[in-house]
Parts: sequence; C-alpha cells; structure tokens
Amino acid sequence: MELLQRHIPIIRWLRNYTKEDAICDLIAGISIGLTMIPQSIAYASLAGLSPQTGLNSAFMGCMIYAFLGTIKEVVIGPSSLMALLTYEYTRSLNMDFVVLLCFLCGIVEFIMGILRLGFLVEFISSPVVSGFTTATSVIIVGSQLKGLMGIRFKSNGFLDNIYQLFANAHKLRWGDTILGVACIIILLILRKAQELKVPETWKYRNYVKKGLWLVSLGRNFLIVAAASFVAYLYKNNGYQTPFVTTKAVEGGIPSLTLPPFSTQIGNKTYDLGEMVTELGTGYIVIPIIAVLANVAIAKAFVNGPVEATHEMLTLSICNIIGSCVQSMPTTGAFTRSAVVSASGVRTPIASIYAAGLALMALGFLGPYFHYIPRATLSAVLIAAVLFLIDWKIFCDLWKKSWLDFFCVTFTLVSCLALGIEVGLLIGVMMGITHLVYKTSRPPLNIEPGKEVTTVSGRNGLYFSATDYFNGKLQKYASGSDTVIIDCSTFSGIDFTAAKGLASLINSFQKRGQKLMLVNVPRKWKKLLLSAGVKEGYIRCESMDEFNCENMQLLLQIEEPTKTETSQHTEKDGNHSA
Amino acid sequence: MELLQRHIPIIRWLRNYTKEDAICDLIAGISIGLTMIPQSIAYASLAGLSPQTGLNSAFMGCMIYAFLGTIKEVVIGPSSLMALLTYEYTRSLNMDFVVLLCFLCGIVEFIMGILRLGFLVEFISSPVVSGFTTATSVIIVGSQLKGLMGIRFKSNGFLDNIYQLFANAHKLRWGDTILGVACIIILLILRKAQELKVPETWKYRNYVKKGLWLVSLGRNFLIVAAASFVAYLYKNNGYQTPFVTTKAVEGGIPSLTLPPFSTQIGNKTYDLGEMVTELGTGYIVIPIIAVLANVAIAKAFVNGPVEATHEMLTLSICNIIGSCVQSMPTTGAFTRSAVVSASGVRTPIASIYAAGLALMALGFLGPYFHYIPRATLSAVLIAAVLFLIDWKIFCDLWKKSWLDFFCVTFTLVSCLALGIEVGLLIGVMMGITHLVYKTSRPPLNIEPGKEVTTVSGRNGLYFSATDYFNGKLQKYASGSDTVIIDCSTFSGIDFTAAKGLASLINSFQKRGQKLMLVNVPRKWKKLLLSAGVKEGYIRCESMDEFNCENMQLLLQIEEPTKTETSQHTEKDGNHSA
Repeated sequence: MELLQRHIPIIRWLRNYTKEDAICDLIAGISIGLTMIPQSIAYASLAGLSPQTGLNSAFMGCMIYAFLGTIKEVVIGPSSLMALLTYEYTRSLNMDFVVLLCFLCGIVEFIMGILRLGFLVEFISSPVVSGFTTATSVIIVGSQLKGLMGIRFKSNGFLDNIYQLFANAHKLRWGDTILGVACIIILLILRKAQELKVPETWKYRNYVKKGLWLVSLGRNFLIVAAASFVAYLYKNNGYQTPFVTTKAVEGGIPSLTLPPFSTQIGNKTYDLGEMVTELGTGYIVIPIIAVLANVAIAKAFVNGPVEATHEMLTLSICNIIGSCVQSMPTTGAFTRSAVVSASGVRTPIASIYAAGLALMALGFLGPYFHYIPRATLSAVLIAAVLFLIDWKIFCDLWKKSWLDFFCVTFTLVSCLALGIEVGLLIGVMMGITHLVYKTSRPPLNIEPGKEVTTVSGRNGLYFSATDYFNGKLQKYASGSDTVIIDCSTFSGIDFTAAKGLASLINSFQKRGQKLMLVNVPRKWKKLLLSAGVKEGYIRCESMDEFNCENMQLLLQIEEPTKTETSQHTEKDGNHSA
Repeated sequence: MELLQRHIPIIRWLRNYTKEDAICDLIAGISIGLTMIPQSIAYASLAGLSPQTGLNSAFMGCMIYAFLGTIKEVVIGPSSLMALLTYEYTRSLNMDFVVLLCFLCGIVEFIMGILRLGFLVEFISSPVVSGFTTATSVIIVGSQLKGLMGIRFKSNGFLDNIYQLFANAHKLRWGDTILGVACIIILLILRKAQELKVPETWKYRNYVKKGLWLVSLGRNFLIVAAASFVAYLYKNNGYQTPFVTTKAVEGGIPSLTLPPFSTQIGNKTYDLGEMVTELGTGYIVIPIIAVLANVAIAKAFVNGPVEATHEMLTLSICNIIGSCVQSMPTTGAFTRSAVVSASGVRTPIASIYAAGLALMALGFLGPYFHYIPRATLSAVLIAAVLFLIDWKIFCDLWKKSWLDFFCVTFTLVSCLALGIEVGLLIGVMMGITHLVYKTSRPPLNIEPGKEVTTVSGRNGLYFSATDYFNGKLQKYASGSDTVIIDCSTFSGIDFTAAKGLASLINSFQKRGQKLMLVNVPRKWKKLLLSAGVKEGYIRCESMDEFNCENMQLLLQIEEPTKTETSQHTEKDGNHSA
C-alpha cells in the first residue's frame, strides 16, 4: 500500500478527499479545461499541426498526470515552448515524425528519471526561479495583449512582440479591447470577492460567504461562460460579434495506436533509424528543456521540495502514452499553472475534469467552442499571470546579497531578450559558476609567526582551489621556519590538491623551510603518498593528535632531519616518526 | 623595470642568460624549427591552405612568443586542432576569411585576457591533464605511424586512423619503415647518451661528457640532418630515394598588411559584417579551444602555476599580428612542446631560432627542405611523445581516489573516441560536476537528543544544498523539542538557502518544535530577515556567543513564547531577546 501510494499518488489524495476539495478541484478543472482547449489548438497550430493533435495531447497529458502527478498546480499538455521546439525540429517533415519525437522524448525523460537525474533540480536556485517566473509572466502578458486588442501578427520573441504591438497599434479593434479590459477588471474584482466582509447580522451569512467563495474561485470559468453566452446571443440572432471568437474544433475521439516507426514523404520511405537521424538533436534537447521548464514551474508554485525524479517519470509516461494517441511533445505550461492556482486547485485530480472537457471537445462539444471570445481568454491568462510578477524580490535582495540580486536580474533580462529556455539555462549556469567559484576560493586561516605558521581552512581542498591555496601559502607563510597545515579542518581533498601540497612541500624545502601536514585524516594518506608527499611530512589524525601543547614536541623530533632535508629528499621520507 | 619585466618576460631570461642556456636554446630552437617547418606545411594543407600560410603562421607565432611568452615548452604556430577547426569554419570560403578568422580569434582571446578569464585554467584538474596528455600522445603515435611506414590515407579521428592503418598495412613501404624504425632506435639510444658513465681516468673526460650531452640534446636536429644528407646523396647521384621525402617549400618573405575587412567570392562582395556572419561561431569556439589546449599543454609540462592571463594575451597578440602576415589561427602544439622539451629547452628564446628557420625556409632554404625524409620526421615526433604517455597515474589513483581515477580514464577514452577538444571539454565538465556535487552535499554533524538537537556543518550552505540540508534535518531532528543550528560552522549562505531555513523553521513550528539559528554571522542577518526568517529565531554571533553552558539559559528565555508560536507567528518575531 505504501509503495502503491508512492508510485500512484492519486491514492494519497483520495484517502483524505473532502467535499470542499472536490468542489475546488471541479471548479479549477473546468476553468483550466476552458482555457486549455483553445490554447492547445493555438499551440498545435504554432507547431504547424492540426487542432486535433493539440487536444489529444492535452487530454492524454491531463489524464495521466491526474493519476501519477504530485504537484497540484502542474497541468501537462502542449506548451508554447514545446510547440516552438517541435516546429524547429520537424518543420520540413510530416506528422509521423512529430509523434515519434513525442515518443522519443518520453523515452529520454524515462531514462533521465531512471538515472535519478532528478537531483539536477537542486541546481535551480530561488533567484533563478524568480527571474524565470517574472520573465515568463511578462512575456505572457506581452503576447496576450494582441489577443486582448484583437490584433493579429506573428512575432519573433518578446522584444519583437512589443515592437509589433506598437507598430500594429492602429489596427486595434475596439470590440475586443473593451471586452478584454472589462473581463480583466471583473476578474480582479471577483478575485477579491471572497475577502468581502459579510455583516454578521445577515441571516444567510454562511450561504453568502460560501457563494462569494465559489464565485471567486470559479471566476475564470464564469467569465468564459458569460462572454461565450454573449457571443451566442449575437450569433443566434444573426449578428456578427463585435469581437473575434476562437475557431470551432473538429475532431473525433482519439484511438490508441503504436507510434509510427516508419513513414513516407513523397517517394522516399524512412525507416526508424533514418527517422531518428532526421530528428537530429531534438529528442535530447526537447526533454531537457521540458524537464527544466516543468521543474522551474513546479518550484515557482510549490513551497518546499519537489519529487523531481517522480515528476520526470510521470512526464515521460505522459509523452510515451501520448504518442499512442498521436500527440505532440508535452510538458507543464506556466499559463495553465497560473490559472489553475488562481482557481484554488487542491489536488492533481482537477486535471481529470480538464481531460474530460478536452475529450468532450474532441467528441461533440467542438462546434460550441467557437463562441468563446479570444479577448476573454487573453484576459483570463493576463489576470492569472499578473500576480506572479515578483518585483518584491528585487527589494529583498538589493544590498543584501549582490550575487543573488545579479542572478535574478540577469535571468530576467536573458529570458526576456533571448527566450525563456535560453534564459533559464543561463540562470542555472550562473548559479553553478558561483558555486564553482566558491570551491576555488576556500576560506583560509593563516596565522603567521616567526617560527611557526599555522594554516587551517573550512571547505574542501579540490583541484580548483590548488593554485589559490598554493599562492596564499607562498605569500603569507614564507617568513617562518615551519609551516603547519591542519588537514582536519578541510572537508576533503583530491589528487590535484594532493599534488599541489607535494609541490608546495618541495618548494618550501628548497628555501630551507619545513611544511608539515598534521591531523591528516587516515583515508587521505594513500592519496597523499601516491601524489608524491613523503611519509615524513604526514602526521595522521589518531596517531598523534596535534594541538598547541605537543607542537613543540613535534618540532623537536623533526629538528635533526631539518638541516638534511634539502640534500637527501629520497631517504628523508622513512626515518622520521 | 619591474613592470617591463612582467609584461615582456624576455628581459627576465636575458638577465641571467648563461652560455649553457644559449647552447641549449639554440639546439632546441633548431630541432623544433626543423620539425615545425614540414609540420606547418602539413597542417596548412589540412586546413586547405597554401604552405606559405603555414610557414607565415609559424614564423609570427614563434617570433612574438619568444618575446612575450613565459613557458619555455610552448611553441606557437599552426596545430592540427586549429587546422581542423579552421577547415570546418572556412571550407567553402576563401583565404581572406581565414585571415579575418585569425584576427578575430586574436581579438576574442584579447578580450578573454582582459576579462581575466585566466582563472578558468584552475578548472583543469591534474587527472584531466594526464588523460589529455596520454590521449594526445597515443593519437600522435597513431597518426605518425603511417608516415613511418610510408603509407598515405586520409583518416577521420583516432579509431578510424587505427582501422585504416591495418586496412592499408599491405601498402607498407620497406624503405620508409626501416629508416623510421632505425631513427627511433637511434633517438632512444642518444637520449640515454648523456647518462653514459665516462671512466674518470680518461684524458678528455670533460670534453667527452660535454660532447655526449650536446649529441643527446641535439639528437632531433642531428637525426634530421643525417637522414636529409642520405637523401641528398641519393638524389644528387641521380637515384630515386627508397623513402618518401617532404615537399619543397615555395614562398617569399611575408609582408605586413592589415587583415582584409571585405572580400569577393565569385560575383558576391562581402563586407565586414557579412564576413563575420559567414564565420558563424568560429571566432568564439576556436579561441576557447585554443586557450584551453594551450593551457592544458602548458600544465602538462610546467610543474607549478601558469600565468594564464598573460599567456592568453600573448596568444592573442600572436594571432592579431599573425593576421597581418596572412596567417591562420595559431596556438601551442603538443608535438612541438614534446620535441622542444626533449631537446632540453631553457627559455622561450629558443623560439627565435625556430622563427629564423621558418623565415629562411620562406626566403631561400625552401628547396632544400625536400631532402627531409617523412619517416624521419615521424620518428622524431614518436620518440618525443613516447615518454609523455603516463600509465603510472592509473596505478597511482587505483584504489586511492575512485573519482580521480574515473576522471582520468574517462578523459582518456573520450579524447581517443571523440577527439581531443571534445575529450578535454568533457574532462573539465566532469571536474566541475564533481565540485558542484560536493557543494550540494555539505558534511553535516547532527547530534540528536530528546530535548535539544544541535546541527553544525563545515562547507557553505548554498542553493544546491538546500534540499539536502532540509531533508536531513527533517529526518534526524524531528524527535526533539528544540533544534539548534550553529551557523558559524557554515562558511557562507545565499538567498535560496536562507529561504530554505525560513521554510524549515515554519514546518518545525507547525509540529510544535522550535528551530533556532545561533552564532549567526552579523552580515547574514539582513539576508535571513528578507528571506522570511523571523528575528526571534536569530541569535547573532557577538550578541550572545552560544555554547553548551548558556544553551540552557537560551531555552529558558524562549520557553514562554514556545507555546504560542504556532498561533501568533506575526508577532512572535519581536518580543524575544
């Protein structure tokens, strides 16, 4: 049971599932379904694919995630990132390649999960998540503004999008703009509805409170439904709507078939090997980006550790089974997480309702979807994403941690200027660079003295720190006869650092100084010896614990050999201790 | 003067330049010159360029390095790596692009030097250098075997080379093979000549010893001269040589002109911008590889720190001025370093003689170079490189440091299988991964107790360690009422880790436990507060130094608030201490 709960998390939720949870999930599920369906179609067309592909992907992603997912805010389906990358890798190929790509991505994600690469998640720092979140939110607001204003253009990244928005501002359609802005205002007001103070004297106080809460949570669904009703009224009475509506969905229930392992374009037949070759690096790059984006989204919403390996495996299963219903590569999408979080989701079970809606859209609801105004959908996305823009972190970090401040700023700017996948990678790289820099500059405590200089440290002594360590010692410890390095204060050593110590001992010896390693952890000894440190310079930890009292003793024992050291280095190693 | 010495290192060498140094440098310089000239021509043709380009590059590289270089074993000129990369980026373009590429590489290296990216050198660990050195030596032996055996073929990497060698073994020419093997044997014997014991009774003992020493050092030069003389005798008497000789050099003294900033291919004229675009990522990739390879070579020969930034700037000047004499991108070459080191080089001044030879080859010596047998050159390279193969490190590291062992093995294998530039990058990446892993698993010392659990650590507490740290504390510290983290034992903190502490305090609080941060370094306080840690949970270092005696005191002070904590979190922060 324990095992089953770990691997099929839906069991965990269902054990303590309350009526309130069920209502919240239902509302969130319908809200996200209504947002997701037109969005999936849009993303599919971004990748040059049919609306049905988008809906199939959304259906399968949600369905599987509801059972296997652990993060309530994640909703698996097509995303703009995946759509763009899929288009990049399959633009001159046919649908079979897309499905195979989806399958291969699943396989690669599965391998990443099996190899427990989930620990990679630990390298996305909180400033990087903040920068990524804010940038993504800003980009989404930017890209939804055209829907809100009823303008149509194709843009190439955020900056181009903003430029085009101004260039095309004269094409603004008032119908869409008014509807969109009104929707945003209503959404923002409804968001606050549940905080309204109901006078305690009212008779139906509890019902009113519950009603307000329901309206507040279901605002995304309500606004879409209401706007669609307006559109329905227009169209049913034979009028043209004053705003743009989404396209009707054609389709049919998806059927399970194995992904295609061979295909034909024109006269040429491709076998599996050739297909894989044609896809290039796609099945490596897309899974990495998918996992990274999914985790960055999860981290933005979850306060605490993320079961990264489990999430990777879940995503892989979504993609592998997805490829059996002809879907495109899927992952979590930031917009969906924002909407589902704003709609008060409680468990991943909400995804089932979204999957149900997607299935209904494919089956028979399809034609009705063309009543949904585009401006309303844009409004829902903008209103959900607006509160994720995290300007506060800049104040939090300003003058408190320059490096973190620089990291969040740089991630934000790179995401906006170069695209979120590149920005995210740059942020992660910056973090790693910082870590690596820290290991190469370990804190040292050198206490110089005329006779004895003692050296202690705190972190590990690794290859990247070798030059720094040797340089510091050459600089500050060259005045005294004996230099003592307390090895127990360092948390680790590697071969390069050991060789560095050996060459340091040699160069001190040439100047007639003596450099001793004391309190050496037993397990270091072999490594030090094989790196060329003579045994006479090593004092092991338990052998003779070094402290200030027996230091004099140590020096006395060593005294006789000291004058010879520069001559007979070979023998020196053996006749001490 | 101090400053001048630092920037123009030739002044350093000249101040203590002895007659012996001069002889050594002369011998090494001529040896390397004779090896370098045919090699430069070969590398130039590998890049699809004229012999003159190769010689120009060698001349300018050596000339400038002699004045500005700091590592006696480095000889700047064309290298196989640079040739292959240049070919990769300019294969469909003309000579002007090659020269511009050389110029741009110089500029980029200059920028890297100015930005003090020299510290990157610290990230090449000693096992990586060993793996790289051994792999390169093995590759060179492999690639020179065909010259030694008089076979001709084009190969694609090391493995293909070995395969082709066996496939073409039947084409072996006995003349070349016998000459080559004889040369190797003579070289190995001469190498030992200076160690010969001359009987003390001999009259001219000192002269004999000096003579042996000279012969031993000059062996590379002597063997080339002797073999060429044999070839000369054959050709002069109207016979065909029984072995292959190198091509004659055509050329002319190079003239200084600015690198081309526009060019024409067919009917199309390219301006500077278009030329740069055509070169793609070449002017980024080539400098990085050039610098990395140069430093890896330097590290393989130098025992001690390398002035990496200075070397970068020197390399950049070699390339920038090189581009003014129509040269290709240059860097140090492993083969040349091996030969120059085997010939007993003392200072970089040796390069001047090599440059002089290259100039003479361009001017009038050209025709005479076609007497040099190819097999002899191969023998010189093989004999020089043979002693760089470092099998000992495998024994040194076996069972002593698994990670370093794995690192050297993996670097070796990747260099052989994927090419040395890829292998080098993989090795560096592995080292960095290891460092980063270390920072994400800091050593922790958790002492659980019924009432109080104390936690101390050693390394820094950074974002990569946050999940690990929180996980450990949740696991081992959940039994006691109070958990105390001694912050002074950690060497640093960042925003993500601070947020992690805040969420840890919250989750302990929810369970009715208290988590205190004691001995907090003063400069952390602001960061902790802005990450959401309440002031009441922070005890700064000097405020009340924490130790076992006053721990009880601390607990008593806190006792009253402990029961309230789970309720009034907002106020809690202010009414303590």
